[in-house]
Amino acid sequence: MSAEEAWAIFNVEPGQAYRNQYADGFQVLHPGHKMVGRAFTVQFMPTRPDVAGVMDSKAQTHGIPHLYNQVAIDMVQPGDVVVVDLFGKVEGGTIVGDNLFYYLANAAKAAGLVVDGSIRDLEGIAEIDMPAYFRKTHPSAIANVMLTGINVPVRIGGVTVMPGDLVLGDPEGVYFIPPQLVKQAVDNADIVHIHDEWTKKMFATGKYKSSEIYGSPKDPELKKQYEEYLKKRLAEIRKSQ
Amino acid sequence: MSAEEAWAIFNVEPGQAYRNQYADGFQVLHPGHKMVGRAFTVQFMPTRPDVAGVMDSKAQTHGIPHLYNQVAIDMVQPGDVVVVDLFGKVEGGTIVGDNLFYYLANAAKAAGLVVDGSIRDLEGIAEIDMPAYFRKTHPSAIANVMLTGINVPVRIGGVTVMPGDLVLGDPEGVYFIPPQLVKQAVDNADIVHIHDEWTKKMFATGKYKSSEIYGSPKDPELKKQYEEYLKKRLAEIRKSQ
Amino acid sequence: MSAEEAWAIFNVEPGQAYRNQYADGFQVLHPGHKMVGRAFTVQFMPTRPDVAGVMDSKAQTHGIPHLYNQVAIDMVQPGDVVVVDLFGKVEGGTIVGDNLFYYLANAAKAAGLVVDGSIRDLEGIAEIDMPAYFRKTHPSAIANVMLTGINVPVRIGGVTVMPGDLVLGDPEGVYFIPPQLVKQAVDNADIVHIHDEWTKKMFATGKYKSSEIYGSPKDPELKKQYEEYLKKRLAEIRKSQ
Amino acid sequence: MSAEEAWAIFNVEPGQAYRNQYADGFQVLHPGHKMVGRAFTVQFMPTRPDVAGVMDSKAQTHGIPHLYNQVAIDMVQPGDVVVVDLFGKVEGGTIVGDNLFYYLANAAKAAGLVVDGSIRDLEGIAEIDMPAYFRKTHPSAIANVMLTGINVPVRIGGVTVMPGDLVLGDPEGVYFIPPQLVKQAVDNADIVHIHDEWTKKMFATGKYKSSEIYGSPKDPELKKQYEEYLKKRLAEIRKSQ
Amino acid sequence: MSAEEAWAIFNVEPGQAYRNQYADGFQVLHPGHKMVGRAFTVQFMPTRPDVAGVMDSKAQTHGIPHLYNQVAIDMVQPGDVVVVDLFGKVEGGTIVGDNLFYYLANAAKAAGLVVDGSIRDLEGIAEIDMPAYFRKTHPSAIANVMLTGINVPVRIGGVTVMPGDLVLGDPEGVYFIPPQLVKQAVDNADIVHIHDEWTKKMFATGKYKSSEIYGSPKDPELKKQYEEYLKKRLAEIRKSQ
Amino acid sequence: MSAEEAWAIFNVEPGQAYRNQYADGFQVLHPGHKMVGRAFTVQFMPTRPDVAGVMDSKAQTHGIPHLYNQVAIDMVQPGDVVVVDLFGKVEGGTIVGDNLFYYLANAAKAAGLVVDGSIRDLEGIAEIDMPAYFRKTHPSAIANVMLTGINVPVRIGGVTVMPGDLVLGDPEGVYFIPPQLVKQAVDNADIVHIHDEWTKKMFATGKYKSSEIYGSPKDPELKKQYEEYLKKRLAEIRKSQ
Repeated sequence: MSAEEAWAIFNVEPGQAYRNQYADGFQVLHPGHKMVGRAFTVQFMPTRPDVAGVMDSKAQTHGIPHLYNQVAIDMVQPGDVVVVDLFGKVEGGTIVGDNLFYYLANAAKAAGLVVDGSIRDLEGIAEIDMPAYFRKTHPSAIANVMLTGINVPVRIGGVTVMPGDLVLGDPEGVYFIPPQLVKQAVDNADIVHIHDEWTKKMFATGKYKSSEIYGSPKDPELKKQYEEYLKKRLAEIRKSQ
Repeated sequence: MSAEEAWAIFNVEPGQAYRNQYADGFQVLHPGHKMVGRAFTVQFMPTRPDVAGVMDSKAQTHGIPHLYNQVAIDMVQPGDVVVVDLFGKVEGGTIVGDNLFYYLANAAKAAGLVVDGSIRDLEGIAEIDMPAYFRKTHPSAIANVMLTGINVPVRIGGVTVMPGDLVLGDPEGVYFIPPQLVKQAVDNADIVHIHDEWTKKMFATGKYKSSEIYGSPKDPELKKQYEEYLKKRLAEIRKSQ
Repeated sequence: MSAEEAWAIFNVEPGQAYRNQYADGFQVLHPGHKMVGRAFTVQFMPTRPDVAGVMDSKAQTHGIPHLYNQVAIDMVQPGDVVVVDLFGKVEGGTIVGDNLFYYLANAAKAAGLVVDGSIRDLEGIAEIDMPAYFRKTHPSAIANVMLTGINVPVRIGGVTVMPGDLVLGDPEGVYFIPPQLVKQAVDNADIVHIHDEWTKKMFATGKYKSSEIYGSPKDPELKKQYEEYLKKRLAEIRKSQ
Repeated sequence: MSAEEAWAIFNVEPGQAYRNQYADGFQVLHPGHKMVGRAFTVQFMPTRPDVAGVMDSKAQTHGIPHLYNQVAIDMVQPGDVVVVDLFGKVEGGTIVGDNLFYYLANAAKAAGLVVDGSIRDLEGIAEIDMPAYFRKTHPSAIANVMLTGINVPVRIGGVTVMPGDLVLGDPEGVYFIPPQLVKQAVDNADIVHIHDEWTKKMFATGKYKSSEIYGSPKDPELKKQYEEYLKKRLAEIRKSQ
Repeated sequence: MSAEEAWAIFNVEPGQAYRNQYADGFQVLHPGHKMVGRAFTVQFMPTRPDVAGVMDSKAQTHGIPHLYNQVAIDMVQPGDVVVVDLFGKVEGGTIVGDNLFYYLANAAKAAGLVVDGSIRDLEGIAEIDMPAYFRKTHPSAIANVMLTGINVPVRIGGVTVMPGDLVLGDPEGVYFIPPQLVKQAVDNADIVHIHDEWTKKMFATGKYKSSEIYGSPKDPELKKQYEEYLKKRLAEIRKSQ
Repeated sequence: MSAEEAWAIFNVEPGQAYRNQYADGFQVLHPGHKMVGRAFTVQFMPTRPDVAGVMDSKAQTHGIPHLYNQVAIDMVQPGDVVVVDLFGKVEGGTIVGDNLFYYLANAAKAAGLVVDGSIRDLEGIAEIDMPAYFRKTHPSAIANVMLTGINVPVRIGGVTVMPGDLVLGDPEGVYFIPPQLVKQAVDNADIVHIHDEWTKKMFATGKYKSSEIYGSPKDPELKKQYEEYLKKRLAEIRKSQ
């Protein structure tokens, strides 16, 4: 499913109001490698010694000596996309370098990383095959922030991301799909795919003006042809799943 | 106390690590009118129908039919500075227009407003005498956001603001001072004030180069004079409080 | 009528689709002085000698030796707001300096100036009492542009401005109101004014929470009071017009 | 011909005043694939129902039920570069997605696309081999704009583009060359090419400082050698055309 | 002399090539108070311990224990405009706070301050009557920079400022005039002043279109009148100097 | 050595204060090709005819008819990284096009180019195998600037670069390392390399949580293992050098 197909579900269907599920403006680590996974969310805020102190004390009662990025990273499960709100911080907003990125990809089997912040050691990270979306790179270590939440609602650009959202990344940006809408999104994507397939076939004949075929065919005979094609291909796709 | 004096406390004193208490980049409604009050914090996030629905249901069990900006505004107490995280949203990020601003100033007796977002009806608001700090103005009503917290920690620029913080605004920006540091901040501000008073007096004589007097006087005799002046003036100030 | 009141008409009323009538991001010459007038539009484009040559030749057949900013300025009538599309150009995008601004204000009796470009000689212009909205100031003269239209549709920010639009400027920004909507806009503004008047009166009593009164009173008795107040005040206003 | 060679013609030759023929700041779809074609221009402006209604009525008298992007796209001829003024709009400023891009490339045989706006479905478009220059990508469909001109003068960045201009795109940006200057541009580009060829040959010998050879050789003997080389190579090139 | 008048000298007169003498984009402390003085230039660069160490050692041989901003400030003479290159640094780029600003204005009798950087304590500084042009304000002290030159050429925006330049500031920006051009600039400014005076008088009659009078009167009789007016007024002005 | 390893030396080691040695925000010509060399610095400033005239006169007494970019380029030695301060200028800030870039790479055997400015003819340059870091590309020639220094201290972003600095470029940005710190930097980089090697080996086993291994192993047995590994690998590396 591409960002455009996801957009269609949330923004075109009447009565739907999920207008805020898309974020862009990222640097994309491997543009040719699509990202699909389940949101594991992490929230940071600017450090205050008084607040950080209280939180660390509480954590210690649970056996965690100090709250920092690796506390969250250690909890990542296979198939998770780690979604990190670092409020756009670049210097000192580096959620991982190549070692922890390697850990996420190879030990935790994470499905990807989205950070409204930065990463460090781009050179080392670029060799590791896991999708990542970040604002910038910076050589500094993470600093002057405190970990304030794991699997809480976080904000990434104009999106409220909930833990468990389906996260889709393509070269344009990232979509966060509430679990209850995934079935509808997948079905819709199949239809869009088939529509595009048929439309391009028609255009390839060179016999039609764009408006005769797209959005939907004007000629009733062609329309019927399209509808039969859609039905047949949908059946094929569903059988193959 | 000015922003410069507050900065001195947090950033210069050795061992202090409150480096993230200052936010700027605001439009200031009444630059000549300083803001002092206690933080009442409000958090919004981009709307998701699923999350908003759950929160509204919970609110209804407490007799609140729907969560929106006025639910928070109705709770404001005299002396509060309303501190609103609207994540920099301009269109649809207008926390108040002139009616609710009038309410805050005249009915709730609030001490001010800081919004990482916008206000609307600048013309009407400009006639009301309450300090306000905002990113922009926009004629739209607040929209496409959900109220997610009242008196929770919020982020304004690079600051984690806690409810109850002392909020100070001057023409440069806004300082958020943790309550436990207020006494130290006030004492320090007195010293800075007296130091500036004395320094300017010395400069006004026209007898000294800047480095002979400022930061601290080089000549031991002058230094002694300054220390006596400081002691005397501190005593006067404290007596008058 | 303020920007907020105009916005209400275009964006809140169901079935209305005039969503693109507001532009902001201007420097405002006299923020305390509202602008009201009829749009006189002027369009410039980047110079091309071939196009400029053809246009000058045509102009010469109408007795105009050369097309430049003063050709448009000479046509301005009393009550016009001159609306100039200079595509945001700053250096060389200065539609007027103090002499031509003086001409517009005092000889042409223009009602104001809106330029998506710049003006020059801010110091001289600031002494002249005509509203002006511009992106920046620059000391250069207008250059490297060609006059391509007078009283044609122009684009200012996200607005298509038509000659004859009612132009309203307040400290927030500028509204362009199609003539056929002016009556509705004025009527609506009266209602908003009265609503604000009554709302503030209620708030001034200190007896109500904001949500009891605003947007509309919850108590049926108060609601009735408000409706009577509205009726009475509307009658007074209309009589006085 | 590269952007640098085109620049040389317009900006260095004395008496030439075509200073505004270059636009940059685009995302380039296939940086390794140069774009060459004839400008087919399309203009959009922000929607106003009153203006759009009048234009649609006129179009209907010509058998076009509604003016929208496909009306223009259906008119594209082989060899056209579609040049679209969408005033930098990103959300809702998507001139084509992958279906219509496929149509342009494969059915209309267009030579390329330049849009001061966006495209959608980057993933699908990236597989189609036609040059494209755009400001951003966005998953939304085109919306809230009206088609106001086909083959009229349009503005792209700082350039007034005329229908019929020769459009050249390389990885740096896009050049719009008036047809009457194309012959001169091509001749000049040949000379620049030969000059670069000879200059690099000389540098490859390792015998010269840069200033002995470039801009033009200082030594009269070398200068003569260069002039003979230029003459010979020009003759070869022209023969081969 | 206004920025517009200065621009006219450098950019309009044929054969003049002083195209880079104007800088803008400043916050202006007292927009109603023009700045005129002689450039006293100060240069800072980002700190490097190795370089700073060598420079401090050299300074010590001249009796200066440490190079920092007050070394330069102590050298300021009455009538100097202090022109500081802090390469746009905001946090830690605060050349003065209210104490040193007071010193410059009242003890050193400086004519103004231009800093490509920031100042701190805007509130205190705003009470002191000396013109100042700065990029931003920040509560931090100057830090992490080293003083690398006093009365050396410095760059402010797109201008190379030389010590001794005449510095003119008005609400638009700042002009740096080489001393050898001051006489010509002043003479020219007188002519521009008289021209504006006469032009506005003519416009005030309401008898002329703008192009009949401005840039220069079209009617030969009016032109003669203007020339006589210019001659008479120039004589008056020069007599009064 | 990567940017991250260099950062570690300057920013983490206690007592070190080289906080300003890293610059980023460049377009990188060949991201897969690391840059290593010795800084050869060049400084330009905005042209002033009076200053340029004096400097050219002085240069003529040394046999240089005119100061311009090729005077510096002719002095470049094998292994130099040419570091050019063009104060971010894009149009007219093009230090080289493809001819002079070819000269630097093939005749002068330079190790790379860093310019706080632009280059022209990206297409031609992209074929030449020398690392380059620049802000933008532009088709114009260098213009309206004067050469003010060769092998003087220059500022690139937030860094003071000294001639002779070791310049390291990777896909993130550029590091300028003072010669006296190179030995320490290289040693440190070896340790970081070995640490990353060992850390990834441990993670690859899938037996550890990230915090058990990274930053340093928590288990004393593992810590000992790591220390032995480090010792052995350091010995191997140093032997191989």
